[in-house]
Amino acid sequence: MSKKLTKRSEDYSKWYNELVVKADLAENSGVRGMMVIKPYGYAIWEKVQAELDKKFKETGHQNAYFPLLIPKSYFSKEANHVEGFAKECAVVTHYRLKNDEDGSIIVDENAKLEEELIIRPTSETIIWDSYRKWIQSYRDLPLLINQWANVMRWEMRTRLFLRTAEFLWQEGHTAHATKAEALAEAQQMHNIYADFLENFMAIPVIKGEKTENERFGGALNTYTVEALMQDGKALQAGTSHFLGQNFAKAFDVKFTTNEGKQDYVWATSWGVTTRLIGALVMTHSDDFGLVLPPNLAPIQVVIVPIYRNEEQLNAITKVANEMVAEFRKRNISIKFDNRTTHKPGFKFAEYELKGVPLRIAIGPKDLEKRTVELARRDTLTKEFVNQDEIVTKVEDLLEVIQKSLLDKATKFRDEHITKVDTFEEFKEVLETKGGFISAHWDGRVETEKEIKNLTKATIRCIPLDAPEEDGKCVLTGKKSTRRVLFAKAY
Amino acid sequence: MSKKLTKRSEDYSKWYNELVVKADLAENSGVRGMMVIKPYGYAIWEKVQAELDKKFKETGHQNAYFPLLIPKSYFSKEANHVEGFAKECAVVTHYRLKNDEDGSIIVDENAKLEEELIIRPTSETIIWDSYRKWIQSYRDLPLLINQWANVMRWEMRTRLFLRTAEFLWQEGHTAHATKAEALAEAQQMHNIYADFLENFMAIPVIKGEKTENERFGGALNTYTVEALMQDGKALQAGTSHFLGQNFAKAFDVKFTTNEGKQDYVWATSWGVTTRLIGALVMTHSDDFGLVLPPNLAPIQVVIVPIYRNEEQLNAITKVANEMVAEFRKRNISIKFDNRTTHKPGFKFAEYELKGVPLRIAIGPKDLEKRTVELARRDTLTKEFVNQDEIVTKVEDLLEVIQKSLLDKATKFRDEHITKVDTFEEFKEVLETKGGFISAHWDGRVETEKEIKNLTKATIRCIPLDAPEEDGKCVLTGKKSTRRVLFAKAY
Repeated sequence: MSKKLTKRSEDYSKWYNELVVKADLAENSGVRGMMVIKPYGYAIWEKVQAELDKKFKETGHQNAYFPLLIPKSYFSKEANHVEGFAKECAVVTHYRLKNDEDGSIIVDENAKLEEELIIRPTSETIIWDSYRKWIQSYRDLPLLINQWANVMRWEMRTRLFLRTAEFLWQEGHTAHATKAEALAEAQQMHNIYADFLENFMAIPVIKGEKTENERFGGALNTYTVEALMQDGKALQAGTSHFLGQNFAKAFDVKFTTNEGKQDYVWATSWGVTTRLIGALVMTHSDDFGLVLPPNLAPIQVVIVPIYRNEEQLNAITKVANEMVAEFRKRNISIKFDNRTTHKPGFKFAEYELKGVPLRIAIGPKDLEKRTVELARRDTLTKEFVNQDEIVTKVEDLLEVIQKSLLDKATKFRDEHITKVDTFEEFKEVLETKGGFISAHWDGRVETEKEIKNLTKATIRCIPLDAPEEDGKCVLTGKKSTRRVLFAKAY
Repeated sequence: MSKKLTKRSEDYSKWYNELVVKADLAENSGVRGMMVIKPYGYAIWEKVQAELDKKFKETGHQNAYFPLLIPKSYFSKEANHVEGFAKECAVVTHYRLKNDEDGSIIVDENAKLEEELIIRPTSETIIWDSYRKWIQSYRDLPLLINQWANVMRWEMRTRLFLRTAEFLWQEGHTAHATKAEALAEAQQMHNIYADFLENFMAIPVIKGEKTENERFGGALNTYTVEALMQDGKALQAGTSHFLGQNFAKAFDVKFTTNEGKQDYVWATSWGVTTRLIGALVMTHSDDFGLVLPPNLAPIQVVIVPIYRNEEQLNAITKVANEMVAEFRKRNISIKFDNRTTHKPGFKFAEYELKGVPLRIAIGPKDLEKRTVELARRDTLTKEFVNQDEIVTKVEDLLEVIQKSLLDKATKFRDEHITKVDTFEEFKEVLETKGGFISAHWDGRVETEKEIKNLTKATIRCIPLDAPEEDGKCVLTGKKSTRRVLFAKAY
């Protein structure tokens, strides 16, 4: 709280970095590229987890846990997979330390592993190695499993939540008897992510498919949900992959069909990560700090007492405690901040910074009038509310805020999808307005790569709802049948 | 289900290993010493997590997340800590793989870390490195944090759940302004573990302190809850450590006191692990399979239909579905197993093996008489119950079973605490009856080690409720003022 945040208009990137640290969401650790998720940030992640976990279980998935370390040789088994992942990984080579002669700690060179172990960058290979043992017959299918875990990718340039060497995620891995079932699963999870992002996190997303070039290593199709940040850059918020029979073939996972034949199973995988917290920050927050949708706010309502003496504080405390009890009955997360070590102004700034959706201030005059001052974090507006109506009012407002944040973000996003038909226009929009650019593309990987080289924009997705439309590729002028969405991205 | 379990009396160890695998709790992976926790086993762990997490939060703790990898140098900072942990650890030395000329994957020798990173065996060092930044003043205290995470200790001889290279756990790490507060915290968490084990897991425990020799590296005092398995071996089920100012001094974590002075903070740490699942299996289960306390059973009640034709199945299904709806209303976890691919006998054996507390069988005659056959897993008894009374009956029985399992285990445990006063007797009881041996000990580490060398028994704890009593050390004959508990242990 010591000094103000950098303004978004001055330096969006700096604003983000400062906000994440000052709002106590996360910070860098003593280990390069690895973050500490602080209690306030972790409480948001717990809400993400709880809601997604419920949705996964409602659709028949079960959680399990697979090893952190994967033998190096497993990565060579699926050729496309290795291309996508094998490079930047943490490698375990030894399994013992010892005391050096001078008393310091050194690696015991006698304890070298025969085969190096890799900290999982994703778990397809170790999981499919297990599935071979678990699946014999169509009766064992579908196998619908999810894992909540930490994974590691040795990123060189890291940013809190958005790109860290270690991150937390969930990874679903399913096996099915038919192609149609596996495709339906990948699409179902894609829909669950979209629904969760929009209706729980208030982050509007575009549902689409990745181009071959942008697909997950080993996938035949990657479904993505793409969000748009306030600086006009896109953020891939979740992906769901149809893996065909690639992993089943690589790990020899066959099953006996209903008709007694042998076939390889069909697979999907899908995941979201702690980068969702980064997306949350960058979608809703402002120059004063975090703005949290009520669904994700660790504290939904805070009560701050305003008093000159202990007598006043006692009188306010009595009213506040009654309110707290009423709110708790309704499962509203409320905090009465009765710290005497900090002044109201300090507290106001703190909760503004931390994005608490509603703030109630109670002073001596409010006691006389039986009112409170109610302040909304998202609009920064205040009003006086009768104490008898405060609970209903807050209940209503929490819903209003949740919806209002989604509406506001949707409006911003929709205003930042620009149709362009020339490459000049493409570059112009990208550099000035930003956002998604809806343009024709000839479907060739070389064109996609060339556009990226020239502009840093990538194809975020081929939107599922994009209509057929004759046109010419924005770079090559070659024939195209529908528009795709380009953007610079996190 | 293919063949019967080994009997406990034949080979307890083999029985355990077979049961864990056959009941689908866990299995070994392709990585030495690392297990896969299967959905049925993980569902039990989720129940452990949910209940403990609730208790932690009720007592003011918040969750956070710290890095998986710890710089090697951190381990050298607290001298006693390094003694306890630094040896058998997984060491990360490189951060990149590459393709060899023949297309296989090799470690990129150019991507060697300057300082090796250790996969956390426990997180004191990395957490206290953060706490230095978080704690300045008495206003920042107490800091009450817990982490749910995976950790790794390179065990040479591993057993599913009991001792694995990677395991899951929670680790609480708290910081306090005074010694008294930190001690009270360590004791509070000790009590929470004891309460949780007894009243939620139905595992009776003895609360005590570890001897200096058995303490956690860096602790001034280690509180332990010790359980007794059916084979007479003890199992340390959870520990809570009073760390004094050791870590604060090692990581220079000072705070300004209320009076404006500088002091080092006082610390605790406490944890339980997935080995609790092993304790659960070994406390309650029998030669037919798992026996699960209702609180931890992923499925509390199963309904198995018994029918000759589709018409009968339809009629039973109607009744079963109504029951399922009634049970769900009461938050009882119920499954109607209407698989047509398996016979009732197969299903009975499966649920017996998996420890489902109650089984309801419904056949054509039951429909006529409006009854069901209700079978208890723990006692293997059956009775006929009127369909109108089944819900109340089940609700009652689930409570009865929960309590009965604790009573049974407590009786067994109490019968296996034997007071001995000579070393001959000590060895005799240890080899024949097993269990805890309550004996006098002279308080010297050398004696403790000698007894372990001679008998493999260790001092499990100095029970908190052990009365002062003059006596002579069972090995040396030297003076002793109270009895301690010895046992062979997992």
